[in-house]
Amino acid sequence: MASFDLAQQPHRRFNPLTGEWLLVSPHRALRPWQGQQEAPDRTQRPTHDPACYLCPGNTRANGEVNPAYEGTFVFDNDFAALTPDAPAGTVELGGLLRAEAESGVGRVICFSPRHDLTLPEMSTPDIRRVVDVWAAQFAELGARPDINYVQIFENKGAVMGCSNPHPHGQIWAQRTVPGDPAKETGQQAAYFQEHGRTLLSAYLDIELQEQTRVVLENEHWVVLVPFWAAWPFETLVLPRRPVQDVTQLTDAERDAFADAIRRLTIRYDNLFQTSFPYSAGLHQRPTDGQPHPAWHLHMHFFPPLLRSATVRKFMVGYELLANPQRDITPEYAAQRLRELSEVHYKQEVA
Amino acid sequence: MASFDLAQQPHRRFNPLTGEWLLVSPHRALRPWQGQQEAPDRTQRPTHDPACYLCPGNTRANGEVNPAYEGTFVFDNDFAALTPDAPAGTVELGGLLRAEAESGVGRVICFSPRHDLTLPEMSTPDIRRVVDVWAAQFAELGARPDINYVQIFENKGAVMGCSNPHPHGQIWAQRTVPGDPAKETGQQAAYFQEHGRTLLSAYLDIELQEQTRVVLENEHWVVLVPFWAAWPFETLVLPRRPVQDVTQLTDAERDAFADAIRRLTIRYDNLFQTSFPYSAGLHQRPTDGQPHPAWHLHMHFFPPLLRSATVRKFMVGYELLANPQRDITPEYAAQRLRELSEVHYKQEVA
Ligand SMILES: O=P(O)(O)O[C@H]1O[C@H](CO)[C@@H](O)[C@H](O)[C@H]1O
Ligand SMILES: O=P(O)(O)O[C@H]1O[C@H](CO)[C@@H](O)[C@H](O)[C@H]1O
Repeated sequence: MASFDLAQQPHRRFNPLTGEWLLVSPHRALRPWQGQQEAPDRTQRPTHDPACYLCPGNTRANGEVNPAYEGTFVFDNDFAALTPDAPAGTVELGGLLRAEAESGVGRVICFSPRHDLTLPEMSTPDIRRVVDVWAAQFAELGARPDINYVQIFENKGAVMGCSNPHPHGQIWAQRTVPGDPAKETGQQAAYFQEHGRTLLSAYLDIELQEQTRVVLENEHWVVLVPFWAAWPFETLVLPRRPVQDVTQLTDAERDAFADAIRRLTIRYDNLFQTSFPYSAGLHQRPTDGQPHPAWHLHMHFFPPLLRSATVRKFMVGYELLANPQRDITPEYAAQRLRELSEVHYKQEVA
Repeated sequence: MASFDLAQQPHRRFNPLTGEWLLVSPHRALRPWQGQQEAPDRTQRPTHDPACYLCPGNTRANGEVNPAYEGTFVFDNDFAALTPDAPAGTVELGGLLRAEAESGVGRVICFSPRHDLTLPEMSTPDIRRVVDVWAAQFAELGARPDINYVQIFENKGAVMGCSNPHPHGQIWAQRTVPGDPAKETGQQAAYFQEHGRTLLSAYLDIELQEQTRVVLENEHWVVLVPFWAAWPFETLVLPRRPVQDVTQLTDAERDAFADAIRRLTIRYDNLFQTSFPYSAGLHQRPTDGQPHPAWHLHMHFFPPLLRSATVRKFMVGYELLANPQRDITPEYAAQRLRELSEVHYKQEVA
């Protein structure tokens, strides 16, 4: 009887950040694909688009005019899912119908005045400016008594529900701590209590030892495909020093964060020679006034593409009803990403 | 100050089946959509397609020939994510890298020999035959000592990752109980222990009293948009009698199940006059040999369309990093579904 082999054989992996399992079916990567093909984004965009509500100087839906910004630009989302002024209240019926009012703030962060760029096409200093905006926003919103959690994220690409290609991200900040950050808070706190160090510090030590899932490193950050990654080319961007939020990063750590993001997203674009879609975001300590020594800031990248610029992974039937499932192994994904150049394919000289 | 209003104001709702929360932003349904448009499926399909690996008499990828089946047809998935013969084993590194071998069975269920049909276009007796197959499969697989959970589901439509329009569903049955059924097991057991009846019986009583989220009823089943629905037109198909699995349904209850599925899926197709995509599946007791008096069989429908045949809800950035979020309220969704005809739009006489 053959022995257990992670590279060949169906198995489950445990996600210590959420406490949940995922199914891995490596042998399944061979099945032919006859389903939906995505349309890769090949449009050449102008540096400024008069019809774009995010470009400098243009008018937004609510009549406001964007300033002639030259770096980043932050404004309150005109269609925010959360609003600050909502009256409080709860609904409760038979213990089974339970609702409560939620309040918060939605903001949009334009990464660049250039309509035609994306993070991997921006310079490291320009990405560093985005990191500084994340820090300033986290500091400002996190200080508010009505905000106990700040979710900073980016949806990139039409396939990830992004409705405007202008490089931008969002912030949804709210009164309560939402599901996934709450799970991560609990799991990290339990680990810290038992071991006296952050879960992700201990995890990073193992991964640096193993090297099989590491994609790239610099002095202050490591990018790896986590052992429990659900999306095909999912990565975790992890600071070596356990800080709880982005405001605590030193100047050098912020530069290095920008470097890690740039190098990772270039590799992503190079993988299938396409502008690589993803949802990405920071997970940080709740801003609920409690100390959170167990929290270790990190950034998740969840990209859907599986085999090519047109074939994605669908998180559907089994995944929606049972639990997440992946075909290629995290080790294989890391190897693919490791082998790629850090020169963007659009910049390559023939 | 205005008072708390579920129909107008951002709020959170609790899902007692999973123990998790979701964000509801009713006011946000107004935002304009400039993002990806789905391609509605308007192809006229033949009743038999020589290129379809599910049609009667055709040859599959592995060389096997489908029988000339006249009702339903079940076979082992040629590209199953789970296989029965996998050697056991575990991996453990530092308490943080944890994996274990998983084994199981993947099957495909053809609902009809007709390549051009879907559930809402099939007759109630033909759908009843599918219900009987679910019961037979659950009985057979659930009796195996190496199978402790049987997930029966359907992915319908290219947007839900379905790669073949021939009406069919799948079964993934496995050694361990996956995440969502495990959560539902725990939540239902806790409720049953405290109240001496199933969670979903108590919930059904409230919904029948309220009526605002009920879509349709028959003698044995109720279809409703659950108070905690995450997908825009998500529904729960619920037997009035608390049974733990589909094998326990009486003859009359099986007929009524087929009736409920047919009437619901016709309404779905009529909503945007398109073949309505969804993932749907049964949640039933684990087949782990334990008694599960708390388990109340139900079927979930998770359909992605939001505003039209071409505009879907994306569960992306905030949803992947924080928690699920919806725009229209469950009450509004139920009302829309209630107002629709139960004559399929393709059958309507002009
Ligand atoms: O098995 P299929 O239909 O080829 O594949 C589809 O359903 C599976 C189960 O939900 C998913 O894992 C796949 O991502 C999806 O494309
Ligand atoms: O806010 P946007 O970019 O219009 O919308 C996008 O991101 C949101 C936050 O992840 C999602 O809720 C929407 O489904 C998605 O289309």
